[in-house]
Amino acid sequence: MKTYIEQNKDRFLSELFDLLRIPSVSADPKFKGDMRRCAEAVKESILKAGADLAEIHETPGHPVVYGEKIIDPALPTVLIYGHYDVQPADPYELWETPPFEPTIRNERIYARGSCDDKGQFYMHIKALETMVATGSLTCNVKIMIEGEEEVGSDHLGTFVRENKEKLKADVILISDTSIIANDVPSIEVGLRGLTYLEVEVTGANRDLHSGVYGGAVANPINVLCEMIASMKDENNHITIPGFYDKVQELSAEERSLMNEAPFDLDEYKRDLAIDELEGETGYTTIERTGIRPTLDVNGIWGGYTGEGAKTVLPSKAYAKISMRLVPDQNNDEILDIFTKHFLSIAPPSVKVVVKPHHGGLPYVTPVDSVEYKAAELAMKEAWGGKQPVPTRGGGSIPIVALFEQELGVKSILMGFGLDIDALHSPNESYGLFNFYKGIETIPLFFKYYTELKK
Amino acid sequence: MKTYIEQNKDRFLSELFDLLRIPSVSADPKFKGDMRRCAEAVKESILKAGADLAEIHETPGHPVVYGEKIIDPALPTVLIYGHYDVQPADPYELWETPPFEPTIRNERIYARGSCDDKGQFYMHIKALETMVATGSLTCNVKIMIEGEEEVGSDHLGTFVRENKEKLKADVILISDTSIIANDVPSIEVGLRGLTYLEVEVTGANRDLHSGVYGGAVANPINVLCEMIASMKDENNHITIPGFYDKVQELSAEERSLMNEAPFDLDEYKRDLAIDELEGETGYTTIERTGIRPTLDVNGIWGGYTGEGAKTVLPSKAYAKISMRLVPDQNNDEILDIFTKHFLSIAPPSVKVVVKPHHGGLPYVTPVDSVEYKAAELAMKEAWGGKQPVPTRGGGSIPIVALFEQELGVKSILMGFGLDIDALHSPNESYGLFNFYKGIETIPLFFKYYTELKK
Repeated sequence: MKTYIEQNKDRFLSELFDLLRIPSVSADPKFKGDMRRCAEAVKESILKAGADLAEIHETPGHPVVYGEKIIDPALPTVLIYGHYDVQPADPYELWETPPFEPTIRNERIYARGSCDDKGQFYMHIKALETMVATGSLTCNVKIMIEGEEEVGSDHLGTFVRENKEKLKADVILISDTSIIANDVPSIEVGLRGLTYLEVEVTGANRDLHSGVYGGAVANPINVLCEMIASMKDENNHITIPGFYDKVQELSAEERSLMNEAPFDLDEYKRDLAIDELEGETGYTTIERTGIRPTLDVNGIWGGYTGEGAKTVLPSKAYAKISMRLVPDQNNDEILDIFTKHFLSIAPPSVKVVVKPHHGGLPYVTPVDSVEYKAAELAMKEAWGGKQPVPTRGGGSIPIVALFEQELGVKSILMGFGLDIDALHSPNESYGLFNFYKGIETIPLFFKYYTELKK
Repeated sequence: MKTYIEQNKDRFLSELFDLLRIPSVSADPKFKGDMRRCAEAVKESILKAGADLAEIHETPGHPVVYGEKIIDPALPTVLIYGHYDVQPADPYELWETPPFEPTIRNERIYARGSCDDKGQFYMHIKALETMVATGSLTCNVKIMIEGEEEVGSDHLGTFVRENKEKLKADVILISDTSIIANDVPSIEVGLRGLTYLEVEVTGANRDLHSGVYGGAVANPINVLCEMIASMKDENNHITIPGFYDKVQELSAEERSLMNEAPFDLDEYKRDLAIDELEGETGYTTIERTGIRPTLDVNGIWGGYTGEGAKTVLPSKAYAKISMRLVPDQNNDEILDIFTKHFLSIAPPSVKVVVKPHHGGLPYVTPVDSVEYKAAELAMKEAWGGKQPVPTRGGGSIPIVALFEQELGVKSILMGFGLDIDALHSPNESYGLFNFYKGIETIPLFFKYYTELKK
């Protein structure tokens, strides 16, 4: 198989580039046509890889692409999940090269979606092609690539519920996460959940002159700032009543094991150009992003934000706020207690609205499971005998918990990205090493998984 | 004179409309051409009114229009000040009729600048025309209309310093303020000063994935909110060290006198559609806007503010912040202590920049001065014997304090607007009653001022 990959590596890359050129931004309605184009392209690529069928399923939002190759119903079935939608690329001006014109610089692919998740799910399609072409496919494959992951997978839940038979599988394999370093393979065994919402604070019914009314009428921006500030204490502990009630506290052993994962604090700070980290007192950076919940403002706006000065006392202020959740927090419960709390701390001088965006449950994969062992063996072989490290990722793939509920199978998060990939940021990139290493590792997972299931 | 005004009222209005149609927004460079056009139009209108000369003076920013009519050097000279620039009109979508297409609805002129300040300074030009046409001009008139009042009059100071001889006058008359109600004439004897600045808070060197980094790296929006919130205590008292050091505390008598001014709290709240006011504990609304300093965020932005959700941990957050000042606070000192304080409360996890925009000193006119008496008599006569009330306005006309420093003369703030005029807001308007009442009152000020100076 390595030979086949070697012989076709340039074509694999140029095919990925074609996919990256499609601005499939799910959050912004003006890219609706591109989303459709992208779904068609994904479907075609699955067929070309040698699948028996590939089809586009409509949803009330963006379509889901499904494909499969069933070689023997008696054999195990691996369901591949990925997403063809990407984050908005703005601010565009910060991109060194256009976000939708993939460019190679120092062995890396620069483009929106290069890693998250086009570059990663496309590895599976090329891995399938490789296994089919070299007659080394050891079990059945199903592929589901959705178009709404970046906006909360609103309609995938329904699709999964309505297609349980079609999606029946023994394990779900997902590449939408990172490894610690190119010489330190790792597998994510935990994902944080998410509650994402938007708040609106309204003072007077119109923008006012800050001289005539300033000091006497509530300023919704000041009020919003005070409300946001009040939700964390001096230890960066979230003050929403009940927020931590269901948080699993790990044992000292578990925590020290976690902290054995390689982590270079100086390199981390240098990469981000920050002097000091900031997080919850009493936890390490690995713990803060792995096993602790958070509350971050993802966006804020209100009043005059144009050129120069405007002495306005605005009528409204807004913020997009998200909370990362850990086992056993429930995103619906957290949305509920956040909303109650936010309304309760609003002063009588303003009106407040909390608008839910989306959310998902946290997730954990047992390291003693067959699924995990197969991934461990695959990576170990691909990395020349180096044992992969189990890690707790800070990100969220809300759909993973839903898969377990609806399909009753575990997901393996075998991603190949790196922290430096700048996901969701300008100049997102994905290493060529990682792209090809993924294509090489995935067939090994199939092989070991089939063996272990015997 | 009343007859002349009556006979020409329609023309006066249509001339004002032509002026209001010019989008003279000084804050936004894209209106530079319109600013120039507006200055030319103002110059022409001064000549048409019967001035001996009218000229445009260039500045590094927008031009100043100057005109004069000297009937006898032995007589007193009144210097009229106003501004032809207006606030930005956005958000445009909230205007019932286009901001730069003046429209009459229920006896009011709706347009950006209808009151602030085109509608008000144009009263003086029509008053001059009236006095000249009816041979009733009792003293010399000088007119200075600038184009940078809404952006801090950056270059008027230099212009004034360089033209002291030309601008030599006995009193400065300004209509850029309000009366309490159409049946309650009033004169502003106090203006608040202003310190306006912009802050930038930077966390990491790029936008980050809020899942991968959230909880471990400072979020500049959360930090900015905490910094802003920390600058007021639970009594809405500003916590910046030294902020109140130079604030004049009024005597119990002065305060009770102030609070005798008619004020309908229910009507005030109904007009703004708010349930509760919010302000510094221990002071009435009239005091909060008249004799107490404030700190308001005029604009805030950072992170993702587009459609939908983006789980980004942003690199930067910004806010435009202004403080209204009262005697004897000094805007430069306040800028200085704000900056020191803001930098001192920034956590080591972020970098902070404070960028000054503009400012001005607070101002007070003695009610026992000849200037004030003349205004008082003029209004009293125009309002059929009703005595005008002295008030402390919350707004700022930074240049007024500078006039006193540089020209050594007092300014009279005889404005004719109303609180409902929605200055700086969508649907700014100015009452026809107020426009014509101003044109009627101004000549009376000239008459009484000349008499009292004899």
